[in-house]
Amino acid sequence: MLRLYDYLPSGNGYKVRLLLRLLGRPFELVEKDIVKGETRTPDYLAKNANGRIPLLELEDGTFLPESNAILFYLAEGTPFMPEDRLGRARMLQWMFFEQYSHEPNIAVVRFWMEHGGLTPEREAVLPAKRAGGYAALGVMEGRLRGRDWLVGDGITIADIALYAYTHVAHEGGFDLGDYPALRAWLDRVAAQPGYVPITQA
Amino acid sequence: MLRLYDYLPSGNGYKVRLLLRLLGRPFELVEKDIVKGETRTPDYLAKNANGRIPLLELEDGTFLPESNAILFYLAEGTPFMPEDRLGRARMLQWMFFEQYSHEPNIAVVRFWMEHGGLTPEREAVLPAKRAGGYAALGVMEGRLRGRDWLVGDGITIADIALYAYTHVAHEGGFDLGDYPALRAWLDRVAAQPGYVPITQA
Repeated sequence: MLRLYDYLPSGNGYKVRLLLRLLGRPFELVEKDIVKGETRTPDYLAKNANGRIPLLELEDGTFLPESNAILFYLAEGTPFMPEDRLGRARMLQWMFFEQYSHEPNIAVVRFWMEHGGLTPEREAVLPAKRAGGYAALGVMEGRLRGRDWLVGDGITIADIALYAYTHVAHEGGFDLGDYPALRAWLDRVAAQPGYVPITQA
Repeated sequence: MLRLYDYLPSGNGYKVRLLLRLLGRPFELVEKDIVKGETRTPDYLAKNANGRIPLLELEDGTFLPESNAILFYLAEGTPFMPEDRLGRARMLQWMFFEQYSHEPNIAVVRFWMEHGGLTPEREAVLPAKRAGGYAALGVMEGRLRGRDWLVGDGITIADIALYAYTHVAHEGGFDLGDYPALRAWLDRVAAQPGYVPITQA
């Protein structure tokens, strides 16, 4: 059976959990508390040298890190990945956008507010992260105006990747009031058969 | 013909230029100076709402942004992409690592040193970025010890993606002296037929 090393509040981990549930694939969850440093132990670093969750362990003992690479692995051959070349590239475009322009602003601010507290160093970069987060939400709003999904006619792993931290953006102080297309898209994801909330495995 | 909107000093742009040269694919270069704001004009934002280079314009006028998504699009069906499912996921693992753990530290510090100057806000986060950059280089060094390439037996777009900013890391003050496997790998990339330096289109 697939084994997922994960931390439940993590949106990066939730992406993988959500896709597994939508696919109806059973998995074993191994919780690792990143706040307590459980992903920086020698034992864990031997599994993932980059010391992060999520980490997927395949049936044969192979370890695969990086949430969006795990999504890609699990989605190949399923309806969650477009069948055409440009569609796959477009899907990856949004997934790289997620890791570069969205997560470092929206997820990081949420984590600071929920766990780390705002140190003076973090206070100094907070306005830039707030602006960067809203810019990313604005790009998504523009894309979703008049569309149901980010790529093509159905839900793909690009939607799952971006849903994870967008639907909890308010926990980092982001107000989605001015993003109606984005809020309607959040509702569409949450209505998928098999959907589970982020607090649940 | 393919058209590439790019800024020559950019490693993200260089990834695409380098792959196109290694593939022997002709393209037209349209230079955009990001320091002068040329990617934030209304005309450019209509092409890429996220306002960044590189941006690939396909023969039919379709625009594709995000350097690593462009690499994936161009590499499908070529030897630069593994043929097996796990190999493709592993390749993407390193490409997401590049955009999340490598570029925001190594490329951003280089950009500050070359262009933006070090403002007080940037000075405050410089030690964290320096540590994050060396941590990423350490993860790569560990992976490349005893291997020629990041994934499988030949060069893939994971190598190209990570080569781009690693080979100019010294311009951001990173010392690669303690990373012998990484330096040997840089030499292997530079020895590929068709190789062009970052300063060249």
